[in-house]
Amino acid sequence: MGLYKVKNLNKHAIIDLIRFTPGGISRVELARQLGLTRAAVTTIVNDLLEKNIICEDERKSAGGRTPIVLEINPKRGRVVGVDIGATHANIILADYSARVIRDHEFPLRIGDGPEACLQKVDEGLRELLAKEGLQLSDVSAVGVGVPGPVVVEVGLVSAPPIMPGWDNFPIRDRLEAMWGCPVTLNNDAELGALGEWAYGAARGESNIAYIKVGTGVGAGLLLGGQIYRGSTGSAGEIGHFTIDENGPRCSCGNRGCLEAMAGGYAISARAVQQIKAGHRTVLAEIDPITAITARDVISAARRGDLVAQHIVIDGGRHLGTAIASLVNLINPSMVIVGGGVAQIGDLLLEPIRQSVKARSLRVSSSAVRVTEALLGRRSSGMGAVVQALTIVLHELAEA
Amino acid sequence: MGLYKVKNLNKHAIIDLIRFTPGGISRVELARQLGLTRAAVTTIVNDLLEKNIICEDERKSAGGRTPIVLEINPKRGRVVGVDIGATHANIILADYSARVIRDHEFPLRIGDGPEACLQKVDEGLRELLAKEGLQLSDVSAVGVGVPGPVVVEVGLVSAPPIMPGWDNFPIRDRLEAMWGCPVTLNNDAELGALGEWAYGAARGESNIAYIKVGTGVGAGLLLGGQIYRGSTGSAGEIGHFTIDENGPRCSCGNRGCLEAMAGGYAISARAVQQIKAGHRTVLAEIDPITAITARDVISAARRGDLVAQHIVIDGGRHLGTAIASLVNLINPSMVIVGGGVAQIGDLLLEPIRQSVKARSLRVSSSAVRVTEALLGRRSSGMGAVVQALTIVLHELAEA
Repeated sequence: MGLYKVKNLNKHAIIDLIRFTPGGISRVELARQLGLTRAAVTTIVNDLLEKNIICEDERKSAGGRTPIVLEINPKRGRVVGVDIGATHANIILADYSARVIRDHEFPLRIGDGPEACLQKVDEGLRELLAKEGLQLSDVSAVGVGVPGPVVVEVGLVSAPPIMPGWDNFPIRDRLEAMWGCPVTLNNDAELGALGEWAYGAARGESNIAYIKVGTGVGAGLLLGGQIYRGSTGSAGEIGHFTIDENGPRCSCGNRGCLEAMAGGYAISARAVQQIKAGHRTVLAEIDPITAITARDVISAARRGDLVAQHIVIDGGRHLGTAIASLVNLINPSMVIVGGGVAQIGDLLLEPIRQSVKARSLRVSSSAVRVTEALLGRRSSGMGAVVQALTIVLHELAEA
Repeated sequence: MGLYKVKNLNKHAIIDLIRFTPGGISRVELARQLGLTRAAVTTIVNDLLEKNIICEDERKSAGGRTPIVLEINPKRGRVVGVDIGATHANIILADYSARVIRDHEFPLRIGDGPEACLQKVDEGLRELLAKEGLQLSDVSAVGVGVPGPVVVEVGLVSAPPIMPGWDNFPIRDRLEAMWGCPVTLNNDAELGALGEWAYGAARGESNIAYIKVGTGVGAGLLLGGQIYRGSTGSAGEIGHFTIDENGPRCSCGNRGCLEAMAGGYAISARAVQQIKAGHRTVLAEIDPITAITARDVISAARRGDLVAQHIVIDGGRHLGTAIASLVNLINPSMVIVGGGVAQIGDLLLEPIRQSVKARSLRVSSSAVRVTEALLGRRSSGMGAVVQALTIVLHELAEA
């Protein structure tokens, strides 16, 4: 029994090292990095080859010898990653080696509640599959991300501030019933950290924070090489850091939360305020002005609108204040800024970097790199793909 | 080679489970909790018994059978834990089972620099040992805590805000040369977390934060059952959380840091301010009023002085604001408040609890218990004892 468990642990470790090593890995390297004997590696690798989970890729090395590199077999099947945001959803279809086959982004309002939203996601997934001549039965597992505190074990969200109507709704169970395959539910920022660690800016890093700046602001933490969820799965709520004890009221009930000063709602509210104060901006052309979204502000900033640019810079400063506290507390080697608002790049990142430098201790600020998400809008979706593949590949290996 | 490593891992795991289980543990329980075979446990336990590291304690159980309980052999030797604070140092002499033989607290000014302070600590240790008829050669290892960011591997502090003159001083090497035994250097708040986890309020918890409220304010984190230090060892600097973007200037150069609003210096500065503003308080009798310390304020509060009490309550509110952010970020099951200022108890703890409830998300605030340090002033010193014992016991087991 003890031996059996260890065997599976080694199998999982070998599969994970193969899938997270860019370009594949040789048997010798597997043994070296995992501290296993060559014989143990050979036994497991042969089993995985026989099951068609991995395949060999022979390449000529410079010296003329041919080290055989092992990779996940991309033809073995497909998984799906779904990133449900406050205003948009993103669906990614990928093969077992996590290569994207096709993806699809579409608008969605999280406030419409779970029934309407999951319906839309279902339609989106079916459409996407149809375009590839595929059906739901061709999908082995689905990873799903949502912008709220997730109780992973039961697949639902608990008291989410920006997901009205979703509290305790059985998201995972509903989707499993709809799609007939295993579904795993995680927090979107957590998936962003995982996606960037597996395939993006944070490859090889051990302690990172991924900050998702969209309508809400959330952080995903990867500490000591592991996704960190906290004692009840709600870690990473940086959006509700108090950065001004007497600041404006937040949707959570508190005063001076980061989200109330730099989230998507705060950005559009700030634009309305600036227009009402008589500042000249292209955003004033939007009618009614209360319909202005954070996306509108971002795109106006990109087109050179000074008012919009100042709103983004101010948002960056506030984000930087909270991120500086995060840097002081967890001393990460990298902070990755992603999500919709972050697509503006350095206009948002530079004030964040300046605040972090000014507001965190030198020993930590000099050790951290603040960078944008390499996968852009796909960080969380790719993290969802990682989770779906973990289910599938570990299960296949155990069979 | 691989096998050898696993063998030591199991040995360390068995020793740790024995020493951190109150009242000791049986062979059967060891096997069950570690998922090891009875045979593997027997081999290692016999080896540890032979080396005199552990001993057997036979007790009659209710049912008449006698399960033999294993404990660390207290007579095998002694270690020392030293907690160096900003204004006081605490030295604890303990046996191998971590029972306190004698301890000693004495004033010390961290600002006098490493040479003067380490000299004082050395004198304090020699005195303490002399009272027990012991010498330095009777001490197997010493754990030391300091109130700054520690680079554990090299045993020094890097850019510590409240330790002027200590930057990059080879603390560990100097002490090892002075005392002739292994010394391990750690951050004091980190040791507080470890001490409370091993022998205090947080036994059995996996995700905890220990907040040390003294002259400085620091946090020690234990996440996923492990001390968490971050990527360069400077995690836990909650004292430099920005809680008011436009607040007062802090010793670190930033504005509105927690430490500038609730640390020991802030508390005494607040008292001076209140006296100058004409408020009636017993603290006004201290001459000159600039000599008022946080300890004076605490003791006046304890004697019923209203001004002093309000200063403590305000400090608690600010602490609660930062702790609420910490709770939002790492979702701990327990926050333990310790250090000199915390000795006032609920007068400080209640406003902290209220701020945490008001300012962190329900899902996290309902999962956390905010409590005072069970070991009182000794949390960090006992954590230092744990570290010293880890060196000694693991080394003995490997020999």
